[in-house]
Amino acid sequence: MYAARRVFAGRASQHLAEAICRHLGEPLGQAEILKFRNDNTFVQILENVRECDVFVVQTSCPPVDENLMELLIMIDALRRASASRITAVLPYYPYVRSDKKDQPRVPITARLVADLLTTAGADRVVTIDLHAPQIQGFFSVPLDHLTATHLFCDYLRAKGLDAPVAVATDSGAAKRALGFARGLGAPLAIMEKHRLGNTDTVEVTAFIGDVRGRQAIIFEDEIASGHTIVGAVDVLRQQGAAEIYVCAPHGLFSEGALDRLATAGISEVITTDTVPHRLAALPALVTELSVAPLLGEAIRRINTGESISDLFRGE
Amino acid sequence: MYAARRVFAGRASQHLAEAICRHLGEPLGQAEILKFRNDNTFVQILENVRECDVFVVQTSCPPVDENLMELLIMIDALRRASASRITAVLPYYPYVRSDKKDQPRVPITARLVADLLTTAGADRVVTIDLHAPQIQGFFSVPLDHLTATHLFCDYLRAKGLDAPVAVATDSGAAKRALGFARGLGAPLAIMEKHRLGNTDTVEVTAFIGDVRGRQAIIFEDEIASGHTIVGAVDVLRQQGAAEIYVCAPHGLFSEGALDRLATAGISEVITTDTVPHRLAALPALVTELSVAPLLGEAIRRINTGESISDLFRGE
Amino acid sequence: MYAARRVFAGRASQHLAEAICRHLGEPLGQAEILKFRNDNTFVQILENVRECDVFVVQTSCPPVDENLMELLIMIDALRRASASRITAVLPYYPYVRSDKKDQPRVPITARLVADLLTTAGADRVVTIDLHAPQIQGFFSVPLDHLTATHLFCDYLRAKGLDAPVAVATDSGAAKRALGFARGLGAPLAIMEKHRLGNTDTVEVTAFIGDVRGRQAIIFEDEIASGHTIVGAVDVLRQQGAAEIYVCAPHGLFSEGALDRLATAGISEVITTDTVPHRLAALPALVTELSVAPLLGEAIRRINTGESISDLFRGE
Amino acid sequence: MYAARRVFAGRASQHLAEAICRHLGEPLGQAEILKFRNDNTFVQILENVRECDVFVVQTSCPPVDENLMELLIMIDALRRASASRITAVLPYYPYVRSDKKDQPRVPITARLVADLLTTAGADRVVTIDLHAPQIQGFFSVPLDHLTATHLFCDYLRAKGLDAPVAVATDSGAAKRALGFARGLGAPLAIMEKHRLGNTDTVEVTAFIGDVRGRQAIIFEDEIASGHTIVGAVDVLRQQGAAEIYVCAPHGLFSEGALDRLATAGISEVITTDTVPHRLAALPALVTELSVAPLLGEAIRRINTGESISDLFRGE
Amino acid sequence: MYAARRVFAGRASQHLAEAICRHLGEPLGQAEILKFRNDNTFVQILENVRECDVFVVQTSCPPVDENLMELLIMIDALRRASASRITAVLPYYPYVRSDKKDQPRVPITARLVADLLTTAGADRVVTIDLHAPQIQGFFSVPLDHLTATHLFCDYLRAKGLDAPVAVATDSGAAKRALGFARGLGAPLAIMEKHRLGNTDTVEVTAFIGDVRGRQAIIFEDEIASGHTIVGAVDVLRQQGAAEIYVCAPHGLFSEGALDRLATAGISEVITTDTVPHRLAALPALVTELSVAPLLGEAIRRINTGESISDLFRGE
Amino acid sequence: MYAARRVFAGRASQHLAEAICRHLGEPLGQAEILKFRNDNTFVQILENVRECDVFVVQTSCPPVDENLMELLIMIDALRRASASRITAVLPYYPYVRSDKKDQPRVPITARLVADLLTTAGADRVVTIDLHAPQIQGFFSVPLDHLTATHLFCDYLRAKGLDAPVAVATDSGAAKRALGFARGLGAPLAIMEKHRLGNTDTVEVTAFIGDVRGRQAIIFEDEIASGHTIVGAVDVLRQQGAAEIYVCAPHGLFSEGALDRLATAGISEVITTDTVPHRLAALPALVTELSVAPLLGEAIRRINTGESISDLFRGE
Repeated sequence: MYAARRVFAGRASQHLAEAICRHLGEPLGQAEILKFRNDNTFVQILENVRECDVFVVQTSCPPVDENLMELLIMIDALRRASASRITAVLPYYPYVRSDKKDQPRVPITARLVADLLTTAGADRVVTIDLHAPQIQGFFSVPLDHLTATHLFCDYLRAKGLDAPVAVATDSGAAKRALGFARGLGAPLAIMEKHRLGNTDTVEVTAFIGDVRGRQAIIFEDEIASGHTIVGAVDVLRQQGAAEIYVCAPHGLFSEGALDRLATAGISEVITTDTVPHRLAALPALVTELSVAPLLGEAIRRINTGESISDLFRGE
Repeated sequence: MYAARRVFAGRASQHLAEAICRHLGEPLGQAEILKFRNDNTFVQILENVRECDVFVVQTSCPPVDENLMELLIMIDALRRASASRITAVLPYYPYVRSDKKDQPRVPITARLVADLLTTAGADRVVTIDLHAPQIQGFFSVPLDHLTATHLFCDYLRAKGLDAPVAVATDSGAAKRALGFARGLGAPLAIMEKHRLGNTDTVEVTAFIGDVRGRQAIIFEDEIASGHTIVGAVDVLRQQGAAEIYVCAPHGLFSEGALDRLATAGISEVITTDTVPHRLAALPALVTELSVAPLLGEAIRRINTGESISDLFRGE
Repeated sequence: MYAARRVFAGRASQHLAEAICRHLGEPLGQAEILKFRNDNTFVQILENVRECDVFVVQTSCPPVDENLMELLIMIDALRRASASRITAVLPYYPYVRSDKKDQPRVPITARLVADLLTTAGADRVVTIDLHAPQIQGFFSVPLDHLTATHLFCDYLRAKGLDAPVAVATDSGAAKRALGFARGLGAPLAIMEKHRLGNTDTVEVTAFIGDVRGRQAIIFEDEIASGHTIVGAVDVLRQQGAAEIYVCAPHGLFSEGALDRLATAGISEVITTDTVPHRLAALPALVTELSVAPLLGEAIRRINTGESISDLFRGE
Repeated sequence: MYAARRVFAGRASQHLAEAICRHLGEPLGQAEILKFRNDNTFVQILENVRECDVFVVQTSCPPVDENLMELLIMIDALRRASASRITAVLPYYPYVRSDKKDQPRVPITARLVADLLTTAGADRVVTIDLHAPQIQGFFSVPLDHLTATHLFCDYLRAKGLDAPVAVATDSGAAKRALGFARGLGAPLAIMEKHRLGNTDTVEVTAFIGDVRGRQAIIFEDEIASGHTIVGAVDVLRQQGAAEIYVCAPHGLFSEGALDRLATAGISEVITTDTVPHRLAALPALVTELSVAPLLGEAIRRINTGESISDLFRGE
Repeated sequence: MYAARRVFAGRASQHLAEAICRHLGEPLGQAEILKFRNDNTFVQILENVRECDVFVVQTSCPPVDENLMELLIMIDALRRASASRITAVLPYYPYVRSDKKDQPRVPITARLVADLLTTAGADRVVTIDLHAPQIQGFFSVPLDHLTATHLFCDYLRAKGLDAPVAVATDSGAAKRALGFARGLGAPLAIMEKHRLGNTDTVEVTAFIGDVRGRQAIIFEDEIASGHTIVGAVDVLRQQGAAEIYVCAPHGLFSEGALDRLATAGISEVITTDTVPHRLAALPALVTELSVAPLLGEAIRRINTGESISDLFRGE
Repeated sequence: MYAARRVFAGRASQHLAEAICRHLGEPLGQAEILKFRNDNTFVQILENVRECDVFVVQTSCPPVDENLMELLIMIDALRRASASRITAVLPYYPYVRSDKKDQPRVPITARLVADLLTTAGADRVVTIDLHAPQIQGFFSVPLDHLTATHLFCDYLRAKGLDAPVAVATDSGAAKRALGFARGLGAPLAIMEKHRLGNTDTVEVTAFIGDVRGRQAIIFEDEIASGHTIVGAVDVLRQQGAAEIYVCAPHGLFSEGALDRLATAGISEVITTDTVPHRLAALPALVTELSVAPLLGEAIRRINTGESISDLFRGE
């Protein structure tokens, strides 16, 4: 394509987009985004985008619906302003867990979001570490599904841990954790929590693998309330882990989560900036790796037509 | 059609929908709507809607984007639950003022909203007193554009004012006010505020019509901050109006509006319940007429195939 | 984009397109367009357009439907001939006044036209001075809405009128006339004609602004029968205007209009060539400015990706 | 379906639609259709059509594009008026001969027409005796392709000709003529006109079958200029035909056609009312059979869900 | 809806559809389906389906692509034949495992199939026990996702096993097996097979739950080659299971599978007829339960508008 | 366009695509295509195609449905892999004879195929010698309809036949044969076979043109069973042809065809490689010309934007 490239940001990903643009060595696209007193969002793109290859970065975080609508409105403005191609870059995908009908008469909102994006005018999508890979099939337009796994591997390798072991907190997470373990050159341990009996109260937990005296590294896709993590930490401690780390690309940290993690005896919580954190407010416990170079490189390659899968080769 | 009719409500129009259902003599459809801690909206329709002719009532009011997404999610759930036909009932249309590109690179969000509704699965739309009638053309699906004008006429006629005169606060509103004047059997007065010179500071205001000693009734489509109204009240007083009333179907009353109106010397502000008000909080100055019978009757006729335009004949 | 650019013309805009091509310094694309004896239109594009950035100029004028169908058929031929992008250039938009349902069971033909254009294969649209700016929202594809206002300003400034005043013949036209007044550096006057009473026969007209001893310049979007203009001329004369000019981008001049204007005591009628006139037949009263440079420049910028809004900056 | 049925007509098929309604025993739907002085078509449907199963009858005849646009505009009005289903009834299909690209860069207008109809809102189509049956594949919506062949058979059988022979004027028409021959219980003769040499001037004509002393009945799909017919009549006379009849469902009779036929020595020209004729102006030579009962019966069956193919069984 | 209901079958589900129709007490719809010598499939629907609520049953089994195309062609024929609504009933969904991009540049064929079905004209879909529930989100049209779990529960309960235990052969299958266990009132056991080290050769298997002396019932969604099953049987025997049963709704039994299962020491393999088996050829080991009553009841309820989820309540 | 060009092949056109790539001087794109044991097709594109102008060559031949699905799956994979443009190259078009409803309730599969191709993601189509040119109108995307006629002309001219005559075996084929005759500079002869009487058994055949002592060259679009050809050979021999040749671009040679032709006394059967033949198995009688240079040149021109119709000029 090689059309002129421009990166814009919604308000939920302003900092991340600035970091992406620093990586790309170009200024962030100028846009005015505000809310009128009637709570209506207003957007104006402040520079010419005709025939440009435009990327709009906007993640999902509270206020979720406002951030999504803001993205849709920006895409509408860019399309009407004659952008040549519009790529929606969603570091954390909205409504990612609403991906199936598991009860009667519920929506599949992750599919609805896919349709809203293309209706507004998105020509393609970039996102990171979807909860279920099938969500790729919710789109007919090309979607680049990136992963932050190698960021965690690089960071941990640099720490020089002597005996790391990757941990999946349930078997649904095992496939994701396996990729991480391989990247790290570490073994994998898997926890199982299942109600095996015919009553809802009995739970039998299994633990596969060996964490005794090792640095156990829990690997999840997101940290919301932190309850699951805290439960897993208890198990790992019972299993004799020497130290416990937590890795998860999407650090949502919903109400109380940071306090909960702070008192659980975790050595370090490592996450990324797919969701914005007020860094000043993050406790020393939490390390934030940046996906900006990853997204920047993906944007560069999408624009020039280079392979994205090559980005992840060699892990 | 005569398929079984079911009315559901988003959270912004719960009270209005209950009133509509009272008018129709049927219970409001049961749905669970809530927000998870991650700020994601969840919806479940709690009764069978297969082959039903479903109406979903949800107005636009703050939080505007949440209310819109909630509506879209409900429509997605209803479509997947095999509703036969889904009518989105929007008493106050979202982003109604964003209806054109009057600056470079701005969105036309009212059109985007139209596309989002049909993408989610709305088969038709009902709304009340659009700011610009051209918004009807943003839809390809049938849209029933209702008006609350006759509610105001009926209410005012019942008051037995001896010398009413309808007032448009600018000429853009004149056509709407004319319909009101005719319904009321009253003359019309029109204000004009224009910067006529080649500087931005000089304003010349004209006033057409005669309000001396009469009950001047300002007729607008919406009341937001109230600034326009208060300015018009001053002019009307200068023109010798005996008493001043304000009518507007959409009473948004953004921050400070009610205080502003309360001290302006207005006899009565008459609006409707297209946008929900905490009634307890409404000052005695404000009278709220209900559009519930109007919407209920429209829903009844859409379901049975009777004429909607007949509803407004004879005004 | 920078793909090779080719401009073609329907039969209603043959002369205008030739002028556009002279401006661009390139020959008009060759096409055979004819009607068979069975009244069917036949089109053949006579040169290779593969991978070209094609513009088709065709205005709306009688026979309106033939001209529209001819445009749709040309677009179909160009699409099947593998044009890379097709821009429909509509100097005067078809059915521009049919933009809303203001009576029961009428069409919104301006929206229908938008859908027909994109169905045939138009990728984008260029038009001039739409009656209602909301018509932009009838399109999902990019639309460049140009204005001829500055042509009138430049022409009148060159005349060196000593005391010009812009005139809107009704308040609906006031916004458009205000832009013109500003471009001209002149004050604005506004006429109002309204039936204020509750009978249809009584009319009260207001006049805002001062035209005494000045050159009053009526500014409209189109001149059809000329009846409105002639009525306005009477009012302006009563108000003491020294001289009266009429400006309108779209000079339709339906039956009898030129005679009507000729005897009304107007100094000059200034219009453009958005609609073709047989110039030989135009009375001396009428001056035709050409939109060819405006359209040519817009076409050049659309092709190269330069800003169109910059074209109008500084007015 | 069994929804209430309403039949409307465009201006080109007013008489035919009245005849259809007489057959159905119901009044023609009331609509106002007119052209404004600016040559724009205006339509208003004058009766409630909500939830109705609506049929709009409009044929293709000069002015071809006006009639087509009028149909599209009516469909738009009916859709916006909430008709439950809209069937476009096109007795003679517009641009029926423009069905392929047989030269570089020409349109396929018959396909374009199909797309315009469904874009405007047609849910299904009824038409009669298409020139090429492949045009059915231009539609994704259901299309009922009727034939008037049996009308001609019935009429001719009733005449009691002693030795009829069906004649196809070229082999492309042979399949159609064969169906007619079978319906009539008559043999078939076929003419061939081909340029067999490598120059354009040499023509060799073949004649298959025996018409000597018989009533030769030329069977075509349409009569336009009549040149082909007149040429065929000469051949038939040379072959010794006792009498010559001409049958064609679509009697377009373009300029000079009736005069040409009148002097060719034809016993009778039999056509239908798919295209309107001013009956007073038709010479005695021409017999017009009515497709109204055929279309009426098809409309009745489409509405009730009865088989249409059964209509033609037994021929 | 209550439109007349008609059930048709593709050749891969002829027997199943006959059983469904017996359940519904109506004859199977008549259609001619054959392959020409050029390997092209030909379909003709042999009875009137106008305004009918049509269901087409066709499963996925070898030849997979022929069966899929046959279904698409049947849907095309039914749509053109004016069926009111077409429901594709796919007992086993085609390409169900191709539901994500887990390698660069692979298709998501399960999504492609969804799009092909709706392109051909399917208005809704019914299927049974999808491998991943997210495939529901590949559709915008309503999809009824049925499960055969209760068939297995009913059958096994009737056997009166004294100590049954449900077994998931890997944790991905645990959720499905849990539903089965609950239906059966039995505990659950889960196997885990994971490569935990950083080499591909080392595998550590865990086993959660207790099967000693019990009837272990492996619960899968499909049986293809049987290799997984045979491996699981070995583990269960090591764990001390008294007897081993295998349940899976989709019994594909690819080459060698039946032999493999026959010699594995399994007491009984229980599957359904979602995929056709030559019953004569099935070894005594295999019990085939029929989904015909389940599909018949779903079809009945879809047609009448009764709840489908109620079908599964009480499990 | 000038984007990087890549040519891929389905398994039915592997050899042809290799020949095309030799013509273009570039390697065939690498892709893995295989069938799993469950008969599901798997595709992986093995090289980066981002922003590439991709052509996928896949003809229709048995197994017809597998080859079609393989093409659709490849297109899906290429689209998701971010190919800039995807052109489906179909040397022989699937279901080409299923192009109309000539019986009640049959499909129009050739149209269905067109829709499936664009649904999967084809942006344009190239094909050769369609049976009916109207099939072009089944597509809205650009279609390049190539012909192999000039290949046959060139080959036969090079043979130096002294008195060639082109032969159409029925009048439907006459137009195609005429183009061939002109290319060859030879006269044309036409056979007619028709049932002229009202019984199905009587056939009357006509023969137009003179083949006595000449080399008669039968020109068809495809050879399937060969029955038609063998019948035509008998007629030509009766008419005194000196020698008989057969030309047809699509040599399907269904079961028994080659034996049938071998014993018919034909001098040479000339076809192309649009459909793959096992060359070793072709009898000496059959000459296979290659369409690879034709397709290669078309692909080159589509990619560069040069005229395709120029390719055929001068014939």
